[in-house]
Amino acid sequence: MPRELEADVAVIGGGLAGLVAARELARAGVSPVVLEARDRVGGRTLNADLGEGKVVEIGGQWVGPTQDRVAALASELGIQTFPTHIEGQNVLELRGRTTRYSGTIPRLNPVSLAEIEVARRRIDSLAKRVPLEAPWSAPDAERLDTMTVGGWMRRGLRTRSARRLLEIAVRTVFGADPADISLLYALWYFRAGGGFDSLVDTEGGAQQDRFVGGSQLISLRVAEELGDRVVLGAPATRVEQRDGRVRIRAGDLDVAASRVIVAMAPVLCDRIEWVPGLPPARTQLAQRMPWGSYIKCIAVYDEPFWRAEGLSGEAVIDAGPATTTFDNSPPDGSPGILLAFVSGAEARAFQRLSTSQRRATLIEGLARVFGDRGRRVERYIEQDWARERFTGGGPISFMPPGVQTGFGAAIREPVGLIHWAGTETAERWSGYMDGAVRSGERAAAEVLEST
Amino acid sequence: MPRELEADVAVIGGGLAGLVAARELARAGVSPVVLEARDRVGGRTLNADLGEGKVVEIGGQWVGPTQDRVAALASELGIQTFPTHIEGQNVLELRGRTTRYSGTIPRLNPVSLAEIEVARRRIDSLAKRVPLEAPWSAPDAERLDTMTVGGWMRRGLRTRSARRLLEIAVRTVFGADPADISLLYALWYFRAGGGFDSLVDTEGGAQQDRFVGGSQLISLRVAEELGDRVVLGAPATRVEQRDGRVRIRAGDLDVAASRVIVAMAPVLCDRIEWVPGLPPARTQLAQRMPWGSYIKCIAVYDEPFWRAEGLSGEAVIDAGPATTTFDNSPPDGSPGILLAFVSGAEARAFQRLSTSQRRATLIEGLARVFGDRGRRVERYIEQDWARERFTGGGPISFMPPGVQTGFGAAIREPVGLIHWAGTETAERWSGYMDGAVRSGERAAAEVLEST
Repeated sequence: MPRELEADVAVIGGGLAGLVAARELARAGVSPVVLEARDRVGGRTLNADLGEGKVVEIGGQWVGPTQDRVAALASELGIQTFPTHIEGQNVLELRGRTTRYSGTIPRLNPVSLAEIEVARRRIDSLAKRVPLEAPWSAPDAERLDTMTVGGWMRRGLRTRSARRLLEIAVRTVFGADPADISLLYALWYFRAGGGFDSLVDTEGGAQQDRFVGGSQLISLRVAEELGDRVVLGAPATRVEQRDGRVRIRAGDLDVAASRVIVAMAPVLCDRIEWVPGLPPARTQLAQRMPWGSYIKCIAVYDEPFWRAEGLSGEAVIDAGPATTTFDNSPPDGSPGILLAFVSGAEARAFQRLSTSQRRATLIEGLARVFGDRGRRVERYIEQDWARERFTGGGPISFMPPGVQTGFGAAIREPVGLIHWAGTETAERWSGYMDGAVRSGERAAAEVLEST
Repeated sequence: MPRELEADVAVIGGGLAGLVAARELARAGVSPVVLEARDRVGGRTLNADLGEGKVVEIGGQWVGPTQDRVAALASELGIQTFPTHIEGQNVLELRGRTTRYSGTIPRLNPVSLAEIEVARRRIDSLAKRVPLEAPWSAPDAERLDTMTVGGWMRRGLRTRSARRLLEIAVRTVFGADPADISLLYALWYFRAGGGFDSLVDTEGGAQQDRFVGGSQLISLRVAEELGDRVVLGAPATRVEQRDGRVRIRAGDLDVAASRVIVAMAPVLCDRIEWVPGLPPARTQLAQRMPWGSYIKCIAVYDEPFWRAEGLSGEAVIDAGPATTTFDNSPPDGSPGILLAFVSGAEARAFQRLSTSQRRATLIEGLARVFGDRGRRVERYIEQDWARERFTGGGPISFMPPGVQTGFGAAIREPVGLIHWAGTETAERWSGYMDGAVRSGERAAAEVLEST
């Protein structure tokens, strides 16, 4: 027999968006219950324990300028930030040659450099015309949504170096290949995060700072506040609207509520049986927002040896398998940690290898750019979000061509007593923790206004 | 307590593919059990009862030249075919003007006509270089897979008339908008069905003939042969491979088998919990093959009045909501039936209307091209496959850009004891009933070879 539970509002999903929504409701005197499929909260944020009270994130982790809502929340919860380590030079491996450089843009031949500069400016100038709240109404939206980022790059970029570097940047931001992503959607996404540089930069950009104690701590603290209003191990399988109430089947629970906030990535919504069925556009939107392919690899060393050699730990590695690395050491610099992203097509090749092959090839890539000490790894941690049943990929659920113009309007539109949250529904910093917080706040406000 | 069941091979999905696979296995002396989520067999084929022993299909229905496997199966089952009614002239409504024409190509200004002719030839010549068994290895596959059909049309077609007619053709074939579909995938799909004309033509093409008794009769007859080896109302929710056996949870059944054939559209596979998890590329393929938007509308009249007026019943209607119609009357021409497809962007607009608004606007469109008698509808039937929980859209689950090159190889590759069937996995006539039959035969052969 299922256990029965009543609440004013049910929230499906105990990631950052769902927890924030529940917190806002509870603060307004409305009783929420959060139904989380996993045995933990935090969704796409996840701390891995390094011992001695230290952690490293194997999910979303950074915070940067204008990400005001997640910053405010962390601050309320007493969670500090610290700057991502950036001192020293970055490394570029491109077509077999390794060079050092400073800042975001590596040293390249002048033609490639000029092409990248033009592409960045062009992206930002096109993006400025895409309205954040309704990207499908941009001038020329139909045409931009028939194109992929990859098609646009093939037409606009002549040099292989410029193409390859932009491809790596796109894969690192979206987890998906340029060929997969709608140009209209990408422009909207860049604008939602303040522009191209804002998304790809460390200092002054989305990778500027980190949270002391790891980003999952935000979710853990909010869940602590909510106490037994958060139920773990309760995957929702059925949502029924009947007689002005919502009834939810989640694991062995039957939950009755006045409204429900669904704080899951759109693609996961297809697993739920909706009674009555969702509007066709919402059903089909869930079929049209695949996850990127994203593997986060963590190499732990006795110390951040690259710093003594004048390196920042940031690298772009053409031959992969990880094409982007960062210094991800704890605030005190001990142990030394390199974070390496394997994404898009490189992720698919990587996934076909055995566990030991993956580790070996990943570390070999690090040793190529950081030297032989890169082989002396004390611990190797790997998180492939495509293997997580309750996620399915990472870092985001993105839009292929035709989706923004054909189905985009369904992403936030309430369906009767159902409201939608999750970073994919955010109008600012979509795809980031900040977008998740904003979406939770917005969904809670919708519910509060409706009652 | 779940009921327990044993079989040599479990088949998930009682559409045409799954039933054919089970039939092949049974004929080879291997005992199958078919697990079907619905309370009926036939998947995307479905007969609607017209009374007096007559039916009309509200799912897949046609059969044409070179669709040899479904033709052979129907013949073995004693199911006859009859030609789609095509005598008389077709009608074109384009930009407010209505004209009559004969054959596949309407009367247009010479420039538009020439453009369409060039586009058809270009599609076929590009398609010829796409290998059916491995489209991702086509010359120039990467580039073709960064483009959408819509982007290709915008660059290649200058006249609005040519663009609009090709758009209607693409929507009728795929259910999706040109902006949604990978050019590489579309070329492969055209080639798998024998070329552009083969897919869009009635006489000599995929719409040439129909089955007496309705296409679902094929599945009903095969299910009859299989008897109690077909279990209805048993949606699979969990597939576990353990100790060289497969264990499947389906409704209130626990099924144990040596192998399993999964005969579902790829996108539906995400609803199943796979233990151990599927390879990431297969998981993410399921996120990347959305359904088209396809509504099949049936207007029933006392008689096929258009025939007496020299019309075939075939029409292309620019202002919609249905953009394509056919004479869908039973073999004896009584009652008279017009079949009207609402697809792609037109489907989304149509879905937002009320039931009575949809009926009214649909019939108004028919009356515009077939005259006032088009309003004297005796019965109106409508099937929106996006509202079917165990389908999700129609007519096919297609590929956006990047999917064929990035994930295509996973579509048929067995995963341990799991084999894949369904028309989307076919190398010939993918998307059609013939492809479903071929895929079922191929999956059964894989299983038989493996034991």
